Amino acid sequence: MVTIDDIRQAADRIAGLVHRTPVLTCAALDAVSGASLFFKCENFQKVGAFKMRGATNAVLSLTDEEAARGVATHSSGNHAQALALAAKLRGIPAHIVMPSNAPGVKRAAVEGYGAEIISCEPTLQAREETLAQVVARTGAAFVHPYDDDRIIAGQGTAALELLEEVPDLDVVMTPVGGGGLLSGSALATSALAPGARVIAAEPKGADDAARSLAAGKIIPSENPDTVADGLLTSLGQRNFPIIRKHVAAIWTVGDPEIIAAMKLVWERMKIIIEPSSAVCPAAVFGHADEVAGLRIGIILSGGNVDLDRLPWLSDRDGD
Amino acid sequence: MVTIDDIRQAADRIAGLVHRTPVLTCAALDAVSGASLFFKCENFQKVGAFKMRGATNAVLSLTDEEAARGVATHSSGNHAQALALAAKLRGIPAHIVMPSNAPGVKRAAVEGYGAEIISCEPTLQAREETLAQVVARTGAAFVHPYDDDRIIAGQGTAALELLEEVPDLDVVMTPVGGGGLLSGSALATSALAPGARVIAAEPKGADDAARSLAAGKIIPSENPDTVADGLLTSLGQRNFPIIRKHVAAIWTVGDPEIIAAMKLVWERMKIIIEPSSAVCPAAVFGHADEVAGLRIGIILSGGNVDLDRLPWLSDRDGD
Repeated sequence: MVTIDDIRQAADRIAGLVHRTPVLTCAALDAVSGASLFFKCENFQKVGAFKMRGATNAVLSLTDEEAARGVATHSSGNHAQALALAAKLRGIPAHIVMPSNAPGVKRAAVEGYGAEIISCEPTLQAREETLAQVVARTGAAFVHPYDDDRIIAGQGTAALELLEEVPDLDVVMTPVGGGGLLSGSALATSALAPGARVIAAEPKGADDAARSLAAGKIIPSENPDTVADGLLTSLGQRNFPIIRKHVAAIWTVGDPEIIAAMKLVWERMKIIIEPSSAVCPAAVFGHADEVAGLRIGIILSGGNVDLDRLPWLSDRDGD
Repeated sequence: MVTIDDIRQAADRIAGLVHRTPVLTCAALDAVSGASLFFKCENFQKVGAFKMRGATNAVLSLTDEEAARGVATHSSGNHAQALALAAKLRGIPAHIVMPSNAPGVKRAAVEGYGAEIISCEPTLQAREETLAQVVARTGAAFVHPYDDDRIIAGQGTAALELLEEVPDLDVVMTPVGGGGLLSGSALATSALAPGARVIAAEPKGADDAARSLAAGKIIPSENPDTVADGLLTSLGQRNFPIIRKHVAAIWTVGDPEIIAAMKLVWERMKIIIEPSSAVCPAAVFGHADEVAGLRIGIILSGGNVDLDRLPWLSDRDGD
């Protein structure tokens, strides 16, 4: 299992290649929540998301021999861009398996970092088979988006930096999809601020992590439906035991609350966060009694939004 | 005329009541511009705009006797909110004359700071007459939005902070409307970085400052038409001589370029700026030859945007 030493080593390894993002506060949102909120702004991270941390750690963890054969993954989201950029920064090939229905803007971003895109049918089976073929052909190292110790350690560096800057937090919060950010943050927090609770936030329309924690076993995500499109995946095998051990609670919130919190953060903090990042502030606003007076660190996971399709304008856009 | 000492005194006076805003950089926008850009983020300032600096300086410059009678102005924009909040922080009354057609959200924001709103017909004559009545009734001190030495000195503190943090700039840029921010920034820059040029950016649809500079006299703004609704006013009598003395050039840009620059800043920097703030980056992108290789400080003036009416979506919204 990943330890705090792995996270510290990851921090040393990726320093200079990823941004040390700022921690922002906002008096208006403190007033709304009744708590003191400290926002770790991974929306300002390279590629616009925390995913750059884990991907960079994974790429830099390879031996020169391994690295020469490149890296591969299947993703249409922030992990694809992050792995492509991390590979580019080390000067090695990246092979990204993407479903054929992935948005053109996402394909263009990955290609812009010089990665090879391999299209496949938009099914999990096709993705995994295509990836296996790519790995067999190239000898590239597979880097899973979250079920990977190097990724977990890398994602944990965001909470490490947050706790260095604001050591006396009562709660550390992250959203949860596959669990890479949550498990890394939970390990960092339990080591550096053992008195702080780790609480995750999850969309009601994709609440497999909350159900998994309640059941004591991984319950796969089935037909998830939420505006927070970064949080659709099931928990990873390496992530779940860490979450079970170190996470105090998972709070679920509905899409209307997520969209309202997203808009409120834009309006009052003047920063752009994606819907998946709005799940934590939405959960805080919905738990006024539990958070009153607490010092809460929130990792804002990313800021990649289609500015032509904002969720609070979706009715007007004919969605 | 305002001096650098007035700006330094203003900085001391307002410290603790206004934010020291961050200076951000963005590799992607440096690549687009061919220059090194340093963005002073007044969109993160209280009330979401640099106007808080001047208003706070004006309110704190009053004697206790003057302050007890309150302050007054006519404005429906950021100055109204800024003066209302500055008055609230000193615990004195504020009387804001607003046209009867001002948006409800702006009235609500000013009322939220405890100010008295006096409605008038939406004409300049009605605004001035109503303000005179308010001043006669209350004895309040009139604080003009830009044609006021206390305001000029206060607005100059943004450039002061920028140059403290990044002393070796080749150019300092601000947008220009009435000229409060530009004249204050020009005074600060000429004193602290005499080798740097001050360049203003102005919408083509409200280019009275560029025409005034060319003519050597104030040419009033007539029927201005631009998305940058913070830059519609004519230059002030106190602002123009400073601008004439210290500003090297005023670059004008069209609304399509302003909107494109605004969207690009949102996309790549993940921060929210209002159209008036996008005029400087738009001007930089449109002057590639002149800016190549330069270190350019840009004051992003504010971030108050109606998120339900984004300019690049205006066709869809039926505007």
